[in-house]
Amino acid sequence: MKVRVAINGFGTIGKRVADAVARQPDMELVGVTKTRPSFEARRAREKGYPLYLAGEGKAEEFAAAGLPLAGTAAELLARVDVVVDAAPDKIGRENRRLYEAAGIRAVFQGGEKPDVAEASFNALGNYAACRGKRTLRVVSCNTTGLARAAAVLLPNWGVDHWEATLVRRGADPAESKKGPINGILPTFQLPSHHGPDVRTVFPELSIATTALVVPTTLMHVHVNHVRLKRPPQAVAEVLEGFRRTPRFRIFAPWEHADGTPQVMEYARDRGIGFNDMMENVLWEAGTRLEGRDLYFFQAIHQESIVVPENVDAIRAMFDLAPDGPSSIALTDRALGLRAG
Amino acid sequence: MKVRVAINGFGTIGKRVADAVARQPDMELVGVTKTRPSFEARRAREKGYPLYLAGEGKAEEFAAAGLPLAGTAAELLARVDVVVDAAPDKIGRENRRLYEAAGIRAVFQGGEKPDVAEASFNALGNYAACRGKRTLRVVSCNTTGLARAAAVLLPNWGVDHWEATLVRRGADPAESKKGPINGILPTFQLPSHHGPDVRTVFPELSIATTALVVPTTLMHVHVNHVRLKRPPQAVAEVLEGFRRTPRFRIFAPWEHADGTPQVMEYARDRGIGFNDMMENVLWEAGTRLEGRDLYFFQAIHQESIVVPENVDAIRAMFDLAPDGPSSIALTDRALGLRAG
Amino acid sequence: MKVRVAINGFGTIGKRVADAVARQPDMELVGVTKTRPSFEARRAREKGYPLYLAGEGKAEEFAAAGLPLAGTAAELLARVDVVVDAAPDKIGRENRRLYEAAGIRAVFQGGEKPDVAEASFNALGNYAACRGKRTLRVVSCNTTGLARAAAVLLPNWGVDHWEATLVRRGADPAESKKGPINGILPTFQLPSHHGPDVRTVFPELSIATTALVVPTTLMHVHVNHVRLKRPPQAVAEVLEGFRRTPRFRIFAPWEHADGTPQVMEYARDRGIGFNDMMENVLWEAGTRLEGRDLYFFQAIHQESIVVPENVDAIRAMFDLAPDGPSSIALTDRALGLRAG
Amino acid sequence: MKVRVAINGFGTIGKRVADAVARQPDMELVGVTKTRPSFEARRAREKGYPLYLAGEGKAEEFAAAGLPLAGTAAELLARVDVVVDAAPDKIGRENRRLYEAAGIRAVFQGGEKPDVAEASFNALGNYAACRGKRTLRVVSCNTTGLARAAAVLLPNWGVDHWEATLVRRGADPAESKKGPINGILPTFQLPSHHGPDVRTVFPELSIATTALVVPTTLMHVHVNHVRLKRPPQAVAEVLEGFRRTPRFRIFAPWEHADGTPQVMEYARDRGIGFNDMMENVLWEAGTRLEGRDLYFFQAIHQESIVVPENVDAIRAMFDLAPDGPSSIALTDRALGLRAG
Repeated sequence: MKVRVAINGFGTIGKRVADAVARQPDMELVGVTKTRPSFEARRAREKGYPLYLAGEGKAEEFAAAGLPLAGTAAELLARVDVVVDAAPDKIGRENRRLYEAAGIRAVFQGGEKPDVAEASFNALGNYAACRGKRTLRVVSCNTTGLARAAAVLLPNWGVDHWEATLVRRGADPAESKKGPINGILPTFQLPSHHGPDVRTVFPELSIATTALVVPTTLMHVHVNHVRLKRPPQAVAEVLEGFRRTPRFRIFAPWEHADGTPQVMEYARDRGIGFNDMMENVLWEAGTRLEGRDLYFFQAIHQESIVVPENVDAIRAMFDLAPDGPSSIALTDRALGLRAG
Repeated sequence: MKVRVAINGFGTIGKRVADAVARQPDMELVGVTKTRPSFEARRAREKGYPLYLAGEGKAEEFAAAGLPLAGTAAELLARVDVVVDAAPDKIGRENRRLYEAAGIRAVFQGGEKPDVAEASFNALGNYAACRGKRTLRVVSCNTTGLARAAAVLLPNWGVDHWEATLVRRGADPAESKKGPINGILPTFQLPSHHGPDVRTVFPELSIATTALVVPTTLMHVHVNHVRLKRPPQAVAEVLEGFRRTPRFRIFAPWEHADGTPQVMEYARDRGIGFNDMMENVLWEAGTRLEGRDLYFFQAIHQESIVVPENVDAIRAMFDLAPDGPSSIALTDRALGLRAG
Repeated sequence: MKVRVAINGFGTIGKRVADAVARQPDMELVGVTKTRPSFEARRAREKGYPLYLAGEGKAEEFAAAGLPLAGTAAELLARVDVVVDAAPDKIGRENRRLYEAAGIRAVFQGGEKPDVAEASFNALGNYAACRGKRTLRVVSCNTTGLARAAAVLLPNWGVDHWEATLVRRGADPAESKKGPINGILPTFQLPSHHGPDVRTVFPELSIATTALVVPTTLMHVHVNHVRLKRPPQAVAEVLEGFRRTPRFRIFAPWEHADGTPQVMEYARDRGIGFNDMMENVLWEAGTRLEGRDLYFFQAIHQESIVVPENVDAIRAMFDLAPDGPSSIALTDRALGLRAG
Repeated sequence: MKVRVAINGFGTIGKRVADAVARQPDMELVGVTKTRPSFEARRAREKGYPLYLAGEGKAEEFAAAGLPLAGTAAELLARVDVVVDAAPDKIGRENRRLYEAAGIRAVFQGGEKPDVAEASFNALGNYAACRGKRTLRVVSCNTTGLARAAAVLLPNWGVDHWEATLVRRGADPAESKKGPINGILPTFQLPSHHGPDVRTVFPELSIATTALVVPTTLMHVHVNHVRLKRPPQAVAEVLEGFRRTPRFRIFAPWEHADGTPQVMEYARDRGIGFNDMMENVLWEAGTRLEGRDLYFFQAIHQESIVVPENVDAIRAMFDLAPDGPSSIALTDRALGLRAG
């Protein structure tokens, strides 16, 4: 029997997780919630997703738009085994009591603080430790990117210490009220919160991060310097390590995808939904090894990187797969991802 | 028997027209040309499109990248009935003698001057007049947008005079070497060349255009003021005229797609290849009628709007359809477009 | 005796008007108000401008920053003859009763509705009509730009009808929380409010405007098409008309200032305070005449264009100059502006 | 007797160095070269700088623009003791033989390779070692920023190792043909060339840098992590070290200058020519000490930071000052800079 899933909030993350859940063989998308009609709500209907009215919403607005509602959010919660909370930051915590009242499990996003759930989750990082939990928090896009890379580096060569600078996008593509238009904004929290957040997945990892915001909408870029414990023989060994791991895409020089505009163009060419790039993106030419010191850039598509993680989180909670790699393989096949 | 088609140049326009041709029931995509390996060349191979080496290219670079070549551009031209020239601006004219030498028909793009071909083409505008031609030129993205709108306004209400300001994007999303980063660049040609270009399709139309370039990559926006000959009863009549015409998408206020970032987000939601928006985009709230004076904004997706036009141009040349509307319907069904 | 002036609000407009007033021979800058300490407040002190605590502000924050306060806003109002209200949009109207209570005159900005004051003001447009008023509203940056141009065109050739598209900046340079980062946002009010606002200065003018917002911080650009009543002999006659009028700067082709980035670079070279460009900027190459139809671009520096107008508004209220041209000449000489 | 100075190239750097030289009590600006007329050439004339025709230029274009020429570049070189080469990157090396032929000294910019001159120069870093040289190269903007900071850290606490990520602007404000408009471009040289370039000033320094380019025109931002040899007592000690050094500006939280847009707004408020910010910009809130580990952001105004360094380089060559600090003090007083 399939796990019945609700998506609470049908924005940037919610609409993607809805599509991803709908494609999984062991899950059923029961419905999604929406506050107001929009082209996104219309698209949900076109895809056959039942629409439920979110808390503040007005049913008459949906009626006027010709978008039928299947009920209220509370009714949706009563019909499912688990909810993916994709509400705006901080609202997830408020929603928690609704989920508890409904007696259902819940997946939260990384915009909530870690204590919103029993554990923080990353599929490559700590799937096993998250099996059977009633609440999980999928770590944020930047933390997911770092945790995935840690999941490759730690078992292979060990990590002595990691320094990362996170060059963050100012807004998502459709958020046209946010800036900056022409400037760089340092994040004065030094080190930034991302390092501690990675330690919700890898508690022992020595990592310090710094962040700043720049005027782009496409992707974040991480500049990493990792002092490994055991030196790889050559950078090719490291690249091979990333390449054979799911959810990494390594670009060769001849592919000419040398910045985030080109990577997103690749994503459009590839044609996965919303032109998403759910993998960590690395470049052969942007990876360098000097002894134990590994330098590498990675680009992170903030809109979609956590999408497969949400699917795996559900699978871990309900113990639907024998182990993490099996869940990842199942998820990625359904999503059309592949290594390399 | 299907018309055999080559695409010469596999960049922004070429890769899209290739996909579009491959989906048509009455056409066969024989191959595409490429100068150097890239993620786009790789994607062509993944889609099963035979790759041919373009003029300046080096076969060994493709070999090193593991991308097999099916031959040279000249060999490709010998195998087809028609070529779609999607080379950079001005190169199409140089290529013309190759096509003549191969004895094949050719479709050129709007970056070439009108005299590159027997006629300039727009499917809604002058399909009938272009039947049986050996060479056609699909007018540019901005001109296509204007010509389509003219094709709605002229027969319904007549056009006394049209003024349009074209607010143009600075670069396509993956062209990261072009600017401006933070500024507005007027085009000093007054009026701009777009008005005369529309008259290659509608010779009698009174239209004057002005253009400027701004720091965006997503879409152009046209600001139109048209003095009609016969007054519509209400703006709803005009909107209905656009709505029932193929290749127009009118957004209602409740859809909340109020700028180009949101329109392109809609396109990602819709999921046509490359998240393209091949229709003229209008807004109910951005259309106003005062007597005979019609004001409307329209957004034009510079990367894709000419794609269905290229398909129809081929069909007109080989007289594959009984008339323009039939060709448009066939094209759009194959591409997943629909009115409204 | 000099007119004693207070500036209420020391932001983008307020700090500029303060400097401008301080330079006038017939005015005395008594003080400026500020809500919180900032580099701008510090700069006010360095220039010797007494700082007064604005409504919501906390005196202890200024003390902690080492910035001495000269009193409260109410105390400042009691010491002056006139206040220039440079508070954020809509706050000016709320402030009006404070000014009335203090029994002083007041200049408001264009972000307020016209009925905030006895008349709307533009120095070239309607100086004479504004003499002796107790309250004036300086029209907004875009309206000022249009009104100045109207003041040249109307007396020389008459205006049959004017159409303008206003391509607006998304945010001022230091407003880093506003967008859009990458997109174009049409203003759905059709025609936009700017046309009626120009008629607060020129009630008879037939003008229709359309607006949109783009991702730049530097300047607005207006695209104008004016049908004149009487045809000029040549475009040179029109250019000469603009050139001999104060507050216009016409760029010749050899100056290579062909877009807003270059115009603002010129402003930096020229070195007036804040690298301001208080004149309407036109380009010879961007001005064209066809019979009675005049097409021209003009760039408007939204941060500073209204600054000299505020000075002239004060002079009109207190009848300090024999006529508008005399006031303009006095203002501009003090500010370092000049024709041409 | 004053040192006679020529500026070869009157672009972004040249026009600023010209102004700076003209203000020094011990230097005489003899003239500047220009290839074509422009608003910048006109401004040079308005400031009274003799204009000389640069290599490729055409005298008749200057005549047509009404800009008198004082002679050719060769004639200018014959009239001076030293030339500041401010030609585009790589052209300086070609110009070197002209300077040798004229028998004059020369200052080159950081766009040239180090071997263009006898030594690479930074005023705080190695003034003494550069005295009496016949050719010097002022290191680039980013290298100057790093070298200045090194000049503070090395003598006070020693540097064990330094890691810096350089987030670079895509273009200068008036370079409207460069991008990217919306994206992040990693620099694949890992580590980047900036570290070795700092070692042209501090040969022993252990430093590794990484760079990327983002869509902004205002400033670069460096993200620094320095492991010091000797731990400061507190971050306040470090901040005090920067604060008492010339050419550093440390912003306090109450100043609200928290990103590059606000820093450049401060520069406009301050009103030094071209709204330049010739100091390294640090933030109290963006500086953190953990034991021996110092983290700090610094913003670098790419257009102007090397300007005072060019002046000091001339002074070092001709041994016009008793030592580096004396030269710096003289330069900065003339430019209107001050500590803090």
